[in-house]
Amino acid sequence: MSNPPDKPATVKARLPRGFGDRARGDIAATDEMLARIRGVYELYGFEALETPFAEYTETLGKFLPDLDRPNEGVFSFQDDDDQWLSLRYDLTAPLARYVAENFDRLPKPFRSFRAGWVFRNEKPGPGRFRQFMQFDADTVGAAGAAADAEICMMAADTLEALGVKRGDYVIKVNNRKVLDGVMEAAGLGGDENAGRRLTVLRAIDKLDRLGVEGVRLLLGPGRKDESGDFTKGAGLGETQAHEVLTLLMSQADVVETGTLEQWERDDSVSISGMTITNSATIKKLRGHFSGSDLISQGLDELQQLADFASAGRYGTRRIIIDPSVVRGLEYYTGPVFEAELTFEVKGEDGKPVRFGSVGGGGRYDGLVARFRGEPVPATGFSIGVSRLYSALKAVNSPIVAGAGARGPVVVLAMDRERIADYQKFVSALRGAGIAAEMYLGAGGMNAQLKYADKRGSLCAVIQGSNEREKGEIVIKDLVLGAQTGGAAKDRADYLELKQKAQFSVPESGLVEAVRGVLARHG
Amino acid sequence: MSNPPDKPATVKARLPRGFGDRARGDIAATDEMLARIRGVYELYGFEALETPFAEYTETLGKFLPDLDRPNEGVFSFQDDDDQWLSLRYDLTAPLARYVAENFDRLPKPFRSFRAGWVFRNEKPGPGRFRQFMQFDADTVGAAGAAADAEICMMAADTLEALGVKRGDYVIKVNNRKVLDGVMEAAGLGGDENAGRRLTVLRAIDKLDRLGVEGVRLLLGPGRKDESGDFTKGAGLGETQAHEVLTLLMSQADVVETGTLEQWERDDSVSISGMTITNSATIKKLRGHFSGSDLISQGLDELQQLADFASAGRYGTRRIIIDPSVVRGLEYYTGPVFEAELTFEVKGEDGKPVRFGSVGGGGRYDGLVARFRGEPVPATGFSIGVSRLYSALKAVNSPIVAGAGARGPVVVLAMDRERIADYQKFVSALRGAGIAAEMYLGAGGMNAQLKYADKRGSLCAVIQGSNEREKGEIVIKDLVLGAQTGGAAKDRADYLELKQKAQFSVPESGLVEAVRGVLARHG
Repeated sequence: MSNPPDKPATVKARLPRGFGDRARGDIAATDEMLARIRGVYELYGFEALETPFAEYTETLGKFLPDLDRPNEGVFSFQDDDDQWLSLRYDLTAPLARYVAENFDRLPKPFRSFRAGWVFRNEKPGPGRFRQFMQFDADTVGAAGAAADAEICMMAADTLEALGVKRGDYVIKVNNRKVLDGVMEAAGLGGDENAGRRLTVLRAIDKLDRLGVEGVRLLLGPGRKDESGDFTKGAGLGETQAHEVLTLLMSQADVVETGTLEQWERDDSVSISGMTITNSATIKKLRGHFSGSDLISQGLDELQQLADFASAGRYGTRRIIIDPSVVRGLEYYTGPVFEAELTFEVKGEDGKPVRFGSVGGGGRYDGLVARFRGEPVPATGFSIGVSRLYSALKAVNSPIVAGAGARGPVVVLAMDRERIADYQKFVSALRGAGIAAEMYLGAGGMNAQLKYADKRGSLCAVIQGSNEREKGEIVIKDLVLGAQTGGAAKDRADYLELKQKAQFSVPESGLVEAVRGVLARHG
Repeated sequence: MSNPPDKPATVKARLPRGFGDRARGDIAATDEMLARIRGVYELYGFEALETPFAEYTETLGKFLPDLDRPNEGVFSFQDDDDQWLSLRYDLTAPLARYVAENFDRLPKPFRSFRAGWVFRNEKPGPGRFRQFMQFDADTVGAAGAAADAEICMMAADTLEALGVKRGDYVIKVNNRKVLDGVMEAAGLGGDENAGRRLTVLRAIDKLDRLGVEGVRLLLGPGRKDESGDFTKGAGLGETQAHEVLTLLMSQADVVETGTLEQWERDDSVSISGMTITNSATIKKLRGHFSGSDLISQGLDELQQLADFASAGRYGTRRIIIDPSVVRGLEYYTGPVFEAELTFEVKGEDGKPVRFGSVGGGGRYDGLVARFRGEPVPATGFSIGVSRLYSALKAVNSPIVAGAGARGPVVVLAMDRERIADYQKFVSALRGAGIAAEMYLGAGGMNAQLKYADKRGSLCAVIQGSNEREKGEIVIKDLVLGAQTGGAAKDRADYLELKQKAQFSVPESGLVEAVRGVLARHG
């Protein structure tokens, strides 16, 4: 009933652009990584939750990345009732839907975590996928700075549980209310200026890439890039743009140029002979930006967050206030967080660059309100799993090294008539908890051994007619076997190695012998 | 920047139809179940593989459930290059694409397993979801019956590893070539009759629901159901339809009426005083259906599969030939399998019914050929995870019972000024590996204790001003605490219980005391 073999192949087998397959090594390493993250989150009292991959498009609505093009960026389709569904774009919008829908029966505060794939209909590029994994934790229903501080401490603990050393990461913290207050003073308050405020946020988010002068242009009249394309700016006057930049630079330059050796003490950071503490940063900001309730409120909240962190012994070295962190999404209403890895890796041009962000989040008191009509406080943090995975590989974390790379014991099918015998050997090994299989292909002995190599097997089991007559089995240590191919120092060593690499045992000794070979290689 | 609180809510929070949220209990139980399945598959030498959720629609093409309406049944959408993508409908089509795309570098045979969500754009109903999970294992590149037999043995081992007792399940086996041979003899051979053959397959698949007479009509002229709707039949003559029905009934009636007590010995099944073995069934079929090469080939393959199973001590009691098993999908080319649970549960009408199928599969030598132009042998098995999960709940399997139901230790926030103290208690507990949290909401003491109950917490930690002055902490056992609410036999018992349910310890004894309470409840 299938395509007859003489028909030509008409379909090209190809992975869709921006999507990826994952083989056993990646899967095992990621699973281990997720288990460690989950372990920390559960220790903090967060509980597992899962929502489906699709939501009604209107549910995502306000959460969409691009307000100007509301249907861009997501994959949408209609169900058999002609209702529009979209693949989830992040894990925050579905959580808001879930909490609003189940509000009365949920414990409040509701602390949950969710690991899952999210989807974006964007141009894929290096490291930019259309399907990628996020791992979120959120506390819904807690208004105070204690909830924000806890999320930041949990992020720090998570990175350490994954093998990122203290000093190799920093949780940067800021508060949107400070920036909002500065924008308000610059005449960008009110609903009618929402678009311009978003332009300001996006401009600030480009500080790393465009530098201060680039951002200054985007805050003001606009900026022409090298290709000649013009990006319209937020239209701030020179003084106003200067105010925003002053805010950003209050801390950013210091953090960006810090090196590992300079993070000396837990509660302060010494850079270029100057000792930085969160309290000092807040004091500096209070000195410059006064006279706005919103700014004062933001700075008070930052102070509280810093105090909680400090009381929990998560000082400035780990949780540091950085006014240049804004997070590009419009929906944050107070504290925002960014987890950055501070060690250097080779960039695309071969030059060392700081690894940078592996996650972020913040407080979003307005999201559940979309459904319930009353504000519901919420704060959360999202890890970019693939990006963090790359980071762990970069620091050679044992969590992602060599996981799942080992294949099963392969029982060679030497004599097609005796397959039932081989099946018995396999069953005996499996019965002892040893992963094993009989070779099921059509190849000869060499092909079968090559197959075992390709699988990453440590051991092969062989019984030809000679061995069968003697009631014996040959055990082949494939790791040592590969070494006997190389030069041995002298003949005695070589023979000893060869004897260890391949030897006979009585049939009854199969399991013990295989276990011995596996034990040799840890 | 979010919706101001005075705006009315405009969006209704609702889960899309046919999709589901999953809470911690379901997630933990399913994870445990998947881990057990994975354990068996790895023991058999299968390795993990993952493909993305979307494929190019043309990749799925032939795998679509309904050839008459190729774009029905799946969720499809266009990417930014206007290429059509579809959410995967099963895990077989993506595997065929993956193997074809990576053919040269893969070990062959290639043995892999994949657990993942699949999506169907169909009318949802009770137990019918638009997103559900499958767990597949496949061997690609092995042509012989040994590969099929191994898949069946692995399915049996998997069910037992999940706590389904021997005798409570059966792996039914059949071979499409037998039915194809009978259809060929009935004049339904050749490409031009593909549609009619599919109609026959679908008619047979309805045997359970419509009975023999219903199927006879669908094999012949067609059938009018109770509502008056007419379903066109395959147009077989009376004699031809009778041949097909004779084939189906060679075994089916016996299996369908067997009860648990009747599965007596490993290598045979005794039903109504008649001893059934796979060899006897094949002999009976050989007697009736002779004279076709295709039928002989199918019966030979069944015999080989039965011999392998028998040599591995998986006799007729576990792996049984049943000619009524056809599997509705067109792409199977030889052996087909169905894993059935034989115990009874209450049906929708309250009457006992056999639980039925929890998975199935078969050999599909033509699927990879679609991409490569040469046939590539392949055989596999797919578990319906949600359905199996329901089955495990029905047999009270410990794997799914009570998993993940326990909440963290809750440290009450009695005095807002002392939050840093409570944070220290929480940190001490977490440092000892005990999941703990400080209450972060706005409620008073009673609300906080209710919150702990709602979370499923076993223990609460309380320090008010009285305790603080004495340097003490109150430990509350929430399980015993709930019991003191009921009647105790006498006052002495009551006081003892009350003392155990709530007691004071010095601050330094916090971790030990909490550990003691947790240990009381396993």
